[in-house]
Amino acid sequence: MLIGSIEAGGTKFVCAVGDEDYRVQSREVFPTTTPAETLRRTRAYFEQFSLDALGIASFGPIEIRQTDPHYGYVTNTPKPHWKNTDFVGPLKRALQVPVSWTTDVNGSAYGELVMARLSNADVQSLVYYTIGTGVGAGAVINGQLVGSLGHPEMGHVFVKRHPADQDFAGICPFHGDCLEGLVAGPTFEARTGRAGKDVPLSDPVWDIMANYVAQAAIQTTLTLRPDKIVFGGGVVSEAFLVKVRREFKQLLNDYVAVPPLESYLCMPLVADNGSATLGNFALARHALRG
Amino acid sequence: MLIGSIEAGGTKFVCAVGDEDYRVQSREVFPTTTPAETLRRTRAYFEQFSLDALGIASFGPIEIRQTDPHYGYVTNTPKPHWKNTDFVGPLKRALQVPVSWTTDVNGSAYGELVMARLSNADVQSLVYYTIGTGVGAGAVINGQLVGSLGHPEMGHVFVKRHPADQDFAGICPFHGDCLEGLVAGPTFEARTGRAGKDVPLSDPVWDIMANYVAQAAIQTTLTLRPDKIVFGGGVVSEAFLVKVRREFKQLLNDYVAVPPLESYLCMPLVADNGSATLGNFALARHALRG
Repeated sequence: MLIGSIEAGGTKFVCAVGDEDYRVQSREVFPTTTPAETLRRTRAYFEQFSLDALGIASFGPIEIRQTDPHYGYVTNTPKPHWKNTDFVGPLKRALQVPVSWTTDVNGSAYGELVMARLSNADVQSLVYYTIGTGVGAGAVINGQLVGSLGHPEMGHVFVKRHPADQDFAGICPFHGDCLEGLVAGPTFEARTGRAGKDVPLSDPVWDIMANYVAQAAIQTTLTLRPDKIVFGGGVVSEAFLVKVRREFKQLLNDYVAVPPLESYLCMPLVADNGSATLGNFALARHALRG
Repeated sequence: MLIGSIEAGGTKFVCAVGDEDYRVQSREVFPTTTPAETLRRTRAYFEQFSLDALGIASFGPIEIRQTDPHYGYVTNTPKPHWKNTDFVGPLKRALQVPVSWTTDVNGSAYGELVMARLSNADVQSLVYYTIGTGVGAGAVINGQLVGSLGHPEMGHVFVKRHPADQDFAGICPFHGDCLEGLVAGPTFEARTGRAGKDVPLSDPVWDIMANYVAQAAIQTTLTLRPDKIVFGGGVVSEAFLVKVRREFKQLLNDYVAVPPLESYLCMPLVADNGSATLGNFALARHALRG
């Protein structure tokens, strides 16, 4: 069996082909340019193989309601050229295989769930946050992706402002000081004038960030009661998560039982953002079974 | 077919028996006293019938993990006498029927879902908030109750403090100014010295409340993307929800598509907190099917 995976990011496409054990047999990475060029390149890559199914995890927002005429489209994205682009349709017609279609973060969430289970952890429900240029999250509950009217957009929830951060207006063009507006990578530049990579972990801004990220983890803990919350993206490091866990513990105040925080709030099991590829393989296999 | 329902509240127990069409055939209400007395009375009531299954929706926190030795218990409740009480065990042994077991708000959420479907609405996922003495919420996603490690406790999430409400410390004994600490019924007394029923809707405190409740609705909207969010409990009225919808619209800023707010953010379809009884009937029938 051969399964294809597309991890469609705003800057690059990662295409891969794996076997029935999810082992990667081939991989190609190219920049995200116009939809026409990028999808042509994607199609050409996969036409080299005799695929059985294809999984796509895409930057968003995307239309995931199967009953909607625009199912399979990238919808209201600010990314130039990509607004209202039919992503699934042309590939499905060209390759003639079942296609699974979800967001990049849902793909990662699913991949991390699969990986946790492969490592014998009893994980039924998992939330995956990415904190980078933007903030997004995906969720799997009892093995199923969450979202009835659409996919989650947990990056844009509101949080209680930190006492030492009252004057920062936030950078989200939609909501100002929502979670993304307060903790996305570019907030470092906005708050300190320096890029995040140049701000040492001893800087108090990291404690403010950790407080907000911990609040987000509290929200998903109390809403979804997942087995695990995984944090990926350029802003996240193990040293940062140490701070997040400290804030989380204080904020939750033992109100509900959670697993040991070292395993509950953690980095991805699959390195280099590879979770989405694994998630795509698994989701495509589900699509194949119908 | 005869199905039993227990809506176990902190002040009263509502027991009912319904038929296969969920029509109530009998109903008895009595005060919640000690566990021994209350459960004896409950058992005596149901022993009058030849039940096929029983649904219980209880005040919490409760243990819902079937693998836990304390499955079926009311656990860490502040309610006198009820801490660590086996609720399901004695009834199951006495009545010898399959029992479904969930929280009061999950029962209501499920009942509202069933009711929405009976009225031909296309509702797969629904969140139910109660805002009264405390704040709680239950959620059904794709027909399934949410919660892997336990039931949701969405009443205790954090929200962005309203500019006109910066000095109020909140009344939650665990978290101070979490959602419950800011909008539960007793906050009226704490903020204004008057009971909620004596504070006219023109009082600005209602706008502050509406802002916080709208933020909670934003959180569940962006996390679960439900088809509907229902608000019950003593604090809620249609006039209050008008304010909540206004705040919600402004906060969401059209970031994701939601149904018309009049049907999306609404009062319960089943009056007098009756949703939980309907939910219990439906959940008990699932338990019967195994």
